Amino acid sequence: MDLILISIGLGLLAIVYGIVTSRQVLSASAGNARMQEIAGAIQEGAQAYLNRQYTTIGIVGVVAAVIVGLALGVVPAVGFVIGAVLSGVAGYIGMNISVRSNVRTAAAAEKGLQEGLTIAFRAGAITGMLVAGLALLAIAVFFYVLVGPMQLAPNDRIVIDGLVGLAFGASLISIFARLGGGIFTKAADVGADLVGKVEASIPEDDPRNPATIADNVGDNVGDCAGMAADLFETYVVTVGATMVLTALLFSEQLGDLLLPMMALPLLIGGACIVTSIIGTYFVRLGNGTNVMGAMYKGFIVTAVLAIPLIYFAIQYALGDMNTVLNPGDVVEFHGRDLFYCSLIGLALTGIIIWITEYYTGTNYRPVRSIAKASETGHGTNVIQGLAISLESTALPTIVIIAAIIGAYQLAGLIGLAFGATAMLALAGMVVALDAYGPVTDNAGGIAEMAELDASVREKTDLLDAVGNTTKAVTKGYAIGSAGLAALVLFAAYTADLRLFFPEANVNFSLENPYVIVGLLLGALLPYLFGAMGMTAVGRAAGDVVVDVRDQFANDPGIMAGTSRPDYARTVDLVTKAAIKEMIVPSLLPVLAPIVTYFVILWIAGQDNAFAALGALLLGVIVGGLFVALSMTAGGGAWDNAKKYIEDGNHGGKGSEAHKAAVTGDTVGDPYKDTAGPAVNPMIKITNIVALLLLAALAGGAH
Amino acid sequence: MDLILISIGLGLLAIVYGIVTSRQVLSASAGNARMQEIAGAIQEGAQAYLNRQYTTIGIVGVVAAVIVGLALGVVPAVGFVIGAVLSGVAGYIGMNISVRSNVRTAAAAEKGLQEGLTIAFRAGAITGMLVAGLALLAIAVFFYVLVGPMQLAPNDRIVIDGLVGLAFGASLISIFARLGGGIFTKAADVGADLVGKVEASIPEDDPRNPATIADNVGDNVGDCAGMAADLFETYVVTVGATMVLTALLFSEQLGDLLLPMMALPLLIGGACIVTSIIGTYFVRLGNGTNVMGAMYKGFIVTAVLAIPLIYFAIQYALGDMNTVLNPGDVVEFHGRDLFYCSLIGLALTGIIIWITEYYTGTNYRPVRSIAKASETGHGTNVIQGLAISLESTALPTIVIIAAIIGAYQLAGLIGLAFGATAMLALAGMVVALDAYGPVTDNAGGIAEMAELDASVREKTDLLDAVGNTTKAVTKGYAIGSAGLAALVLFAAYTADLRLFFPEANVNFSLENPYVIVGLLLGALLPYLFGAMGMTAVGRAAGDVVVDVRDQFANDPGIMAGTSRPDYARTVDLVTKAAIKEMIVPSLLPVLAPIVTYFVILWIAGQDNAFAALGALLLGVIVGGLFVALSMTAGGGAWDNAKKYIEDGNHGGKGSEAHKAAVTGDTVGDPYKDTAGPAVNPMIKITNIVALLLLAALAGGAH
Repeated sequence: MDLILISIGLGLLAIVYGIVTSRQVLSASAGNARMQEIAGAIQEGAQAYLNRQYTTIGIVGVVAAVIVGLALGVVPAVGFVIGAVLSGVAGYIGMNISVRSNVRTAAAAEKGLQEGLTIAFRAGAITGMLVAGLALLAIAVFFYVLVGPMQLAPNDRIVIDGLVGLAFGASLISIFARLGGGIFTKAADVGADLVGKVEASIPEDDPRNPATIADNVGDNVGDCAGMAADLFETYVVTVGATMVLTALLFSEQLGDLLLPMMALPLLIGGACIVTSIIGTYFVRLGNGTNVMGAMYKGFIVTAVLAIPLIYFAIQYALGDMNTVLNPGDVVEFHGRDLFYCSLIGLALTGIIIWITEYYTGTNYRPVRSIAKASETGHGTNVIQGLAISLESTALPTIVIIAAIIGAYQLAGLIGLAFGATAMLALAGMVVALDAYGPVTDNAGGIAEMAELDASVREKTDLLDAVGNTTKAVTKGYAIGSAGLAALVLFAAYTADLRLFFPEANVNFSLENPYVIVGLLLGALLPYLFGAMGMTAVGRAAGDVVVDVRDQFANDPGIMAGTSRPDYARTVDLVTKAAIKEMIVPSLLPVLAPIVTYFVILWIAGQDNAFAALGALLLGVIVGGLFVALSMTAGGGAWDNAKKYIEDGNHGGKGSEAHKAAVTGDTVGDPYKDTAGPAVNPMIKITNIVALLLLAALAGGAH
Repeated sequence: MDLILISIGLGLLAIVYGIVTSRQVLSASAGNARMQEIAGAIQEGAQAYLNRQYTTIGIVGVVAAVIVGLALGVVPAVGFVIGAVLSGVAGYIGMNISVRSNVRTAAAAEKGLQEGLTIAFRAGAITGMLVAGLALLAIAVFFYVLVGPMQLAPNDRIVIDGLVGLAFGASLISIFARLGGGIFTKAADVGADLVGKVEASIPEDDPRNPATIADNVGDNVGDCAGMAADLFETYVVTVGATMVLTALLFSEQLGDLLLPMMALPLLIGGACIVTSIIGTYFVRLGNGTNVMGAMYKGFIVTAVLAIPLIYFAIQYALGDMNTVLNPGDVVEFHGRDLFYCSLIGLALTGIIIWITEYYTGTNYRPVRSIAKASETGHGTNVIQGLAISLESTALPTIVIIAAIIGAYQLAGLIGLAFGATAMLALAGMVVALDAYGPVTDNAGGIAEMAELDASVREKTDLLDAVGNTTKAVTKGYAIGSAGLAALVLFAAYTADLRLFFPEANVNFSLENPYVIVGLLLGALLPYLFGAMGMTAVGRAAGDVVVDVRDQFANDPGIMAGTSRPDYARTVDLVTKAAIKEMIVPSLLPVLAPIVTYFVILWIAGQDNAFAALGALLLGVIVGGLFVALSMTAGGGAWDNAKKYIEDGNHGGKGSEAHKAAVTGDTVGDPYKDTAGPAVNPMIKITNIVALLLLAALAGGAH
């Protein structure tokens, strides 16, 4: 019980860090009146969008909560509500910090690069720590209440279903937030570029473009709020799944050690909050202008300090690193094996970051090959970009496979779970790096629109240059960890199946054709989901183009610079479009497992229905991993290939190569910011719904 | 034995049809001297390319034959050589017919649309019947020699290994041919477009463009020779796998019926050759200009006539439709169940053709949505094209799943095999429709270069308009059947495993992490393969651009029209590039199963190595199906969106929308003609290599 309370304390520490740092950021200068006016418009648009989005999601959430309550009881429904509300809160906080720091970053950049970096990174760090802290607190407090005051056994079915309900709430909200925000941000971005840069030949972020505020709002609601909700979900699901799997697989062997083992993931999470906070203080430029280097310093300090702290956490929880945890069937393993698995998780995080930087950084072959291909036109730019996006799946997959094998050899399935937990424990720092991006992106936009000195924009551009890479890094990290977490959820599915339906004879062998059917259906989901996301962005961006053309036509004063465009009208239009478009694709992963189960049940009986459903879960992991990795890395590479050309290579800005690179960037936008990242919550929702379905069927049967 | 001889007779009938029809086509007018000169240059280039390609493949083939011979003995090595040589011959014939019919089609189109259609379709039909006939003869004669004169039992290991060797030979050659030809055709096409249409602003097929002959050569060596080798392979592997699976699974139950059951797929193939030949005579325009309708008439006649013939074939082979074939473990099934499974295969073919037409035809939403998205620029065209390419996987997958379930419920795994066999039995007709495309494409090019009357080009354009759809249809058909055939091969793998290693305890359950590792590795292969193919096209197209720019710079007379460009130099350059680039990706699926087996063997022992290898086979099917379907349908849709705009929609030729659509078409080129279709042989090679590896390991162990 101590362990849980310590974890709660460390979670609160993250919140305190967030509050203190918020004050520091908010006390910084918010710039001149024009800057504040622009920032105000962005803030208002973002607020309006999130309000509308969460109202819509709220309706779905209430329906889902009632269904969970009816099917599984009060505690899982409460868990669902906690997960859902806090996932929403994480998004809100991310957005709120971001829309206040952007203008302050622009103002600070007037003083110098280090000053700009400080504000922007602190803003990111606030979001990061609050996401990690809220996620940790959500599970730890909920778990504490269940096994403390309510005196339930840690492996009581109510506890397990409660944790699954919590994960479901977080996932359901986050897929809507990721997708809705993703559609908003890219529809606005693509629409603004098409009608501004291409048709009207005015620069990006030009105040005459009616879509420019919508574009900046998008950074906050998509890249910031959507991302924060997504990482909150990833954290809750991974840590929760590790706890559930421990309860399902090891209740008997562990005895009194069950509670400490279930609390251990929380403690590891808490320990890494401490190291993440320390790490944030190491993000400084030193003498040069190597922004990425400063970021890495912070990350490396966090990860390296995590090693001893995780060691002590495990030792403290288990009493002895040589405690035999499982004398059982697959492998015998001890406390120290869990430590090694955690190291695998940390190493996997580092390697994925490195691979992502290779594929999306301007210093390496992939981005440069796309830039070079731009010389021969739009077509070759896109061909090379697609080739890179396909290729970029290879190394992460091989590293993930190595991690799976390593963790499994050390400690079986639970080793995999602890590897994933250690990965996610670093979320505070990783989110900090990511949330920094939209702040600097906005700061640049504000500097442009407020017509600040060109040197300010230069500095914000320098700060923003690493933003594409850090954004891609988080997505690679989230999807990589999702792969592991989903395998843990799949293990929970099979364990639950044996528990609930001991008489069932489910054949998960690849030789069972219903397994093949499930694999194919599962692999189809990310394709269909991606198609819907891409189509939505294209359609909404088209609406933006029509709206802006209309504004230009009705008021020639806009282009002349004498009258102000109606920014709010465009924001409102994108808001409506994004909310309308997010519904159907988000429901796809919720309904697919249920429909699959009942259709196969009808055709081939319950055993085959369970087999097909299980295979669907793995199919969605296998298919989704590749779709998500290729989209996120490919999109980042396209974006940076454009930046590389803008830095004066292959003819620089305005050249034919640059035009081709803009096309590639546009294509990459919905790839990397809409369809790709939303695959992460999608994979997990499918798995969680299957778990809930099992519990509901068992409830009905018993 | 009668059955085999009848099949041989029907295979010979296809050859006779080919020879007789060849004479008809060759006796048609070959046009004026200028046309013959151009056709001669194309013919020479195609011949030179194929000679060089087959020389290179020959070296790989000899090495592979020696390895097969050493590992498995003389008969499998002979089978390998037969498969390899005939796959090459199929490609040669396809190319040779095509390069002679193109100019005759152009000459015939001077007289009228029906005349042009007749020549072009007959050319396609020759290739189709020779591909199907050669494939049928290859297996039937080989099988006859083994079980007749050599007096081996039909389920003798030598027979089984011989059939697998035959399939391996066909597959290995066809992946090289598909990929090499695909790289050639798209590098030339993309390069010619970039430097001609985009840079020099001269129309497609303008004789001043030095890459124009290379572009036309590409149609013949890629779309024709490569496709013919590919479909030859698909036929041989599917029919061969059905025979092998019958021998492995049902030897004991069938008794005297084993030989007729193994010969039955050959008889079904033979029966459908008859209906395909009849079908070709129904491809006529009637009163209108509905070329696609004429094609459909031919296909429908072929498929409908196939129903009674397959019925009689099964009845003749088994004596009675109620014969119990398998009283065994999964389902009891009878002769008539195999008939129903064949109907599923025929229906699947029809439905896939229909879905492909929906996704690639200019009359439906997908293509029109891409055309509309072109109005807002290059970026939105590509976004919508990618969305359609992702979406286009859904319906085929669901239909394939339904077919798997249906066939399995009727007759288990062998039902699946017979479904796939019935699908492939229609190959003669399907190849005819496909091979027609490059002939009309070339005819248009020749009409343009020979400066024939514009009305001729109009007619060839009308004939060519359906070419994109028929080409996409074959690819969807090939990959769909590959999905089924690969499942049959996977079943053969597991059956072989039990036979060779009865003491092994291989756990194919999804709960085994090595199964997950295998699935991930398998799904990675098509991504990596696709990346390599796309990169190769981009690189080679870049070389073409450089070469053409150089020719323009050194001889201003070319653009002035006073001197002839050096076509051969460009052909030679693309030839070298294509051959260099095809090697590594083609070896990927050959080496991956072997490396996977030995690495996992080293880490986790033989049982897990077998499990991972089996899962890799399924992973490559699951991953490859989606990659291939999305690439081939997406590419076709992009191409036809451009055609739709050229027909005068959204601003027509020369508009901004048209420029955007040209970009989409360029992107779709390597998607649909290089990377996508080559996934089909890739999937099967991986499976066949695994079968050979098992046999080799068993040989070493015994």
